[in-house]
Amino acid sequence: MGYGEIDQKAINTIRLLAVDATFNSNSGHPGAPMGMAPVAHVLFNKFMKFNPKNPKWLNRDRFVLSNGHGCMLQYAILHLFGYDVTMNDLKAFRSVDSKTPGHPEAHDTPGIEVTTGPLGQGVCNAVGLAMAQAHTAATFNKSGLDIVDNYTYCFLGDGCLMEGVSSEASSLAGHLQLGNLICIYDDNHISIDGDTNCAFTEDVVKRYEAYGWHVVTVDDGDNDLAGIEAAIQNCKQVKDKPSMIKLRTTIGFGSLQQGTHGVHGSPLKADDIKQVKQKWGFNPDKSFEVPKEVYDMYGKHSSEGAAAEEQWNKLLSNYAQKYPKEHADLQRRLKGELPHGWEKSLPVYTPSDSAVATRKLSETVLGKIESVVPELFGGSADLTGSNLTRWKSAVDFQPKANGLGDYAGRYVRYGVREHAMGAIMNGLAAYGTIIPYGGTFLNFVSYAAGAVRLSALSQVRVIWVATHDSIGLGEDGPTHQPIETLAHFRALPNCMVWRPADGNETSAAYYVALTSKNTPSILALSRQNLPQLESSTIERAMKGGYVVHEVQGANVTLVSTGSEVSICVDAAKYLEEKHGVKARIVSMPCFEVFDAQSKDYRLSVLPDGIPSLSVEVMSTMGWERYTHEQFGLNRFGASGAYKDVYKKFEFTPEGISKRAVATIDFWKSVPNVRSPVNRAFQQLI
Amino acid sequence: MGYGEIDQKAINTIRLLAVDATFNSNSGHPGAPMGMAPVAHVLFNKFMKFNPKNPKWLNRDRFVLSNGHGCMLQYAILHLFGYDVTMNDLKAFRSVDSKTPGHPEAHDTPGIEVTTGPLGQGVCNAVGLAMAQAHTAATFNKSGLDIVDNYTYCFLGDGCLMEGVSSEASSLAGHLQLGNLICIYDDNHISIDGDTNCAFTEDVVKRYEAYGWHVVTVDDGDNDLAGIEAAIQNCKQVKDKPSMIKLRTTIGFGSLQQGTHGVHGSPLKADDIKQVKQKWGFNPDKSFEVPKEVYDMYGKHSSEGAAAEEQWNKLLSNYAQKYPKEHADLQRRLKGELPHGWEKSLPVYTPSDSAVATRKLSETVLGKIESVVPELFGGSADLTGSNLTRWKSAVDFQPKANGLGDYAGRYVRYGVREHAMGAIMNGLAAYGTIIPYGGTFLNFVSYAAGAVRLSALSQVRVIWVATHDSIGLGEDGPTHQPIETLAHFRALPNCMVWRPADGNETSAAYYVALTSKNTPSILALSRQNLPQLESSTIERAMKGGYVVHEVQGANVTLVSTGSEVSICVDAAKYLEEKHGVKARIVSMPCFEVFDAQSKDYRLSVLPDGIPSLSVEVMSTMGWERYTHEQFGLNRFGASGAYKDVYKKFEFTPEGISKRAVATIDFWKSVPNVRSPVNRAFQQLI
Repeated sequence: MGYGEIDQKAINTIRLLAVDATFNSNSGHPGAPMGMAPVAHVLFNKFMKFNPKNPKWLNRDRFVLSNGHGCMLQYAILHLFGYDVTMNDLKAFRSVDSKTPGHPEAHDTPGIEVTTGPLGQGVCNAVGLAMAQAHTAATFNKSGLDIVDNYTYCFLGDGCLMEGVSSEASSLAGHLQLGNLICIYDDNHISIDGDTNCAFTEDVVKRYEAYGWHVVTVDDGDNDLAGIEAAIQNCKQVKDKPSMIKLRTTIGFGSLQQGTHGVHGSPLKADDIKQVKQKWGFNPDKSFEVPKEVYDMYGKHSSEGAAAEEQWNKLLSNYAQKYPKEHADLQRRLKGELPHGWEKSLPVYTPSDSAVATRKLSETVLGKIESVVPELFGGSADLTGSNLTRWKSAVDFQPKANGLGDYAGRYVRYGVREHAMGAIMNGLAAYGTIIPYGGTFLNFVSYAAGAVRLSALSQVRVIWVATHDSIGLGEDGPTHQPIETLAHFRALPNCMVWRPADGNETSAAYYVALTSKNTPSILALSRQNLPQLESSTIERAMKGGYVVHEVQGANVTLVSTGSEVSICVDAAKYLEEKHGVKARIVSMPCFEVFDAQSKDYRLSVLPDGIPSLSVEVMSTMGWERYTHEQFGLNRFGASGAYKDVYKKFEFTPEGISKRAVATIDFWKSVPNVRSPVNRAFQQLI
Repeated sequence: MGYGEIDQKAINTIRLLAVDATFNSNSGHPGAPMGMAPVAHVLFNKFMKFNPKNPKWLNRDRFVLSNGHGCMLQYAILHLFGYDVTMNDLKAFRSVDSKTPGHPEAHDTPGIEVTTGPLGQGVCNAVGLAMAQAHTAATFNKSGLDIVDNYTYCFLGDGCLMEGVSSEASSLAGHLQLGNLICIYDDNHISIDGDTNCAFTEDVVKRYEAYGWHVVTVDDGDNDLAGIEAAIQNCKQVKDKPSMIKLRTTIGFGSLQQGTHGVHGSPLKADDIKQVKQKWGFNPDKSFEVPKEVYDMYGKHSSEGAAAEEQWNKLLSNYAQKYPKEHADLQRRLKGELPHGWEKSLPVYTPSDSAVATRKLSETVLGKIESVVPELFGGSADLTGSNLTRWKSAVDFQPKANGLGDYAGRYVRYGVREHAMGAIMNGLAAYGTIIPYGGTFLNFVSYAAGAVRLSALSQVRVIWVATHDSIGLGEDGPTHQPIETLAHFRALPNCMVWRPADGNETSAAYYVALTSKNTPSILALSRQNLPQLESSTIERAMKGGYVVHEVQGANVTLVSTGSEVSICVDAAKYLEEKHGVKARIVSMPCFEVFDAQSKDYRLSVLPDGIPSLSVEVMSTMGWERYTHEQFGLNRFGASGAYKDVYKKFEFTPEGISKRAVATIDFWKSVPNVRSPVNRAFQQLI
């Protein structure tokens, strides 16, 4: 304890850096940084354990700014403590290609753990980081060798609390008794629409207690530094519950407009900046001023962090000597690399193997690889028996106290919480020792769209096991049958969407998903059984698209995915028998991966001179990029036995053949039809 | 009170209809209907006011089955009370084109108010229905003439409570003090993964109290009919809070597997069915059996409902005499028709009008039409000042008690709750007297994807005012800049996505959105100012796509939307000056509406013989349907001033021209290039 003038100076320095940066870029949110500077000062300078020279140190405390619009707070802190965020970076706030974008982005800025800004996401990421810590500790720590014991701290605002995704994750965090998670709620009574009284009058303390959290309140977050410190200390002592500190602050503290939404999302006016600098003893004519003693104080804390890492490195060498296997496993995981030869465990199929649903094939993959890829850490949003995401011997990730598993368990019961599952997986992946996967119906990955988008943007390896991938799910009907879902996620940059057609393609999908360190994947898997294709192999499917059936003098190419590939195989026979037409067949399980192949290869799969028809039982959107004509479903599906539903929409050999013939007829007047692979210019990527 | 044998028989009849129908279709969820039959019996037979012969009677009580997988409960009830759901319909449960699909669909089945099944949505719809009732009552009721005083009842399960969207709506419902909403939580302790102890251990009662709800508990929902009745009665008396009844039930009550997840999602076994029928005095060899006295009892209640409607009709004529204007307004609204001549209020622009952001133009539209379209009822997810969704004189929809507005107010402060806003709007639209609109950033409509999908499927008129529609939002950066969003919603069936380029196009978007009774719309609107186009008119833009700039002997057609159309205008000048190339320009504000035009018209806009290039600053996915080449952004954006961001990605006259020239070069070897409007066959719609 014992706070003095220097602390106040440091806090005001943080505040003014936010004021100056937002003014300088004429954009941004000064209010939250000004209000939360005191708690940031106490947290970072008294509690947080980190080494700015090695932002990736495994046992660092994690910090998440869930109210990401307040990022100048975080950038100021990173700068002052000596991360590689320079004063020039602060001056470049919110300018193109800077290290200091409008919201914190994990892959751009050292010290940023997760990408936040879309409200509600960060606190869920924090839950994921805390789960990952608990799991890593339970898996690797040994008696006297606690190599992982960090905390996760999270700042969040009213907006985060209003978003449902945070409710989902908070309920789960309470259930999981995550004592290593401490959230600090900036209770400033202001949101963009004005006083929170206009829309947010619930009792937050009571709600979080209902979730099973430990909740404390600090009434004067603007001035009561000792109270803030005591509250954090108190929360650290509660080991079997996540904690929430409700911190009453004044948004834009110091501004003439403090406590109003006028300071939320716009820079302060020049006059206002002058008065606040004068008031706090700063030179009103200077900007981006940092007193030397502030740098010194924070530098001292950073040095202590560096020393702590040194200390920890000794602990780790000790660990390495006593537990070389575990140590090697941990080091491997931290590099993001898979165990040597792991891929030999992927199941391989021949055409004589029986027809199996790809969700079932996915279950087989998980069962075969879980022991060789121990960082696999999965779950389901309450659809375990449908998604088939749990291998037989799996132990649930649960607090020991509830008797249903323990933190060393690798299977998460997410509950019916798809969005939180997605956002938590982003946190799990960001921790560095885990590859998370999560199951739900493909249709309900859409509930998690906000989180999937951030997986892609923040470049994390997250895998969605998205079963019941089409109208082929049958009886559940249109409310559950995806139509637009694949188009949606195919349009999302840096996201792989796989729709495998059989066992080898399913293995290929897992292979590419697991070896793509910086890209999330969605595996769209069938409920119904699918035969093993004649010519599929893992290697061929790994290219994203390949020729399943080649034929000399083909009249048409049928291009398809998943459950429709084998119907195309039947259609090709039908076309030959009834129409004397020769059809090539291409399976295209993943657009994104196919796009990354050489043009020569792509042209060998989709050659010039032959018109093509895509066949997929959902929106045709996007297929025009690969084929001349498209057979799909640009309407909602129907409830009924899946064969009846396929028949209704003509996804049968006859229905496909009819459209293949129309395609051939339509294109026969065009000499040497050009493959859609040919484009006039390269896209920006 | 006073329940006897006949009540038990009725309850068991409901249960057995669910058992028989799921067995008959070999698919579905018997557990919830068997557990909730008692409360359904009490609610429908003692409380609910409805007339099965006129399921659209305005003042009926509304019922929402948020746990929609239990729909056989609802279908059985509808049948037994005499709605147009026959025994054959029950036998056709979950078969193609039946009235009894796998989850309840509002537009298919009389008596179904809203489409449910995707968990969490129904309870939000119920909040919307309750808000609509409160607003309609406050707007139309007169002293002694309460023409609207219905309640909204909602059943929901654990899954609905775990979904974040329900948390959002429940918090808002508590804030809004909706005393006309009574929810009944089927606390059966079972979800698909087994006992809810594995993932859902929060204190639901305490949480809902924290939201400001009135909560009561019934411990024996299987048998205590009087207790259920008393609880509902108690809730009806609480006028200033929404109510939740936590009802402890046994899932699959009566089955040998009762109380386990074995009865959740699979039909009972034949033997099990036999024993339960025997146990309850039904013929074990018969299926779909309804004792005459059950029909009689329920028929009596329905007759009372019909009489109540008769009574109400008298009240309404009385109302019509005293308040003819209000009465006419109400009748008009119920038909879904807009006031005669309303469209004259839409603003019209000329090229000399100044450049204005389309979000601002949207604000102007709302300000001009709100008084002539009094059923417009809008809001924003805490972005009012950014979305510009509130007209100046608007009154907030708030409980009188908080002093911030009243229920006659037409502007909703949704809080940062996009998903709930979407789902609530579906309920608002379903009530019949309101056209809801809601504002957020386009990027965050994705948070509400689950609700938007149900708007489209259930064919309701809901309007999203989706501002900050591209990288043009600038400094907020990639976390807020949509890339995949338009492709996503363009791929969604029955959803109109508009991206207007100027004032006339904005007016056209509103015109079509407001006059499309059965289709939701998303209006993607710019943050930045856009000039008025030379040749835009409301009538031309209403076609979804039209020629902005025609030129004889054109070498290329530039096809664009929104903020890029005017850049294409500059590009055309640049092309002429620097490259001697003639470019036509097409504005395509809405794919879906353009697709609905005649082929002749579409070919006049996108003619044969001229290669075309699309220009839109987001995913190119879907543009291949209209143009030969695509210039877009298949990567994430950047944080910076919007002009810098546009420049970085070359969305400038120069950047467009370069690609237009490449397009011309690439296609010049192809004689008489075929317009993509030409297709080999028609899509299924």
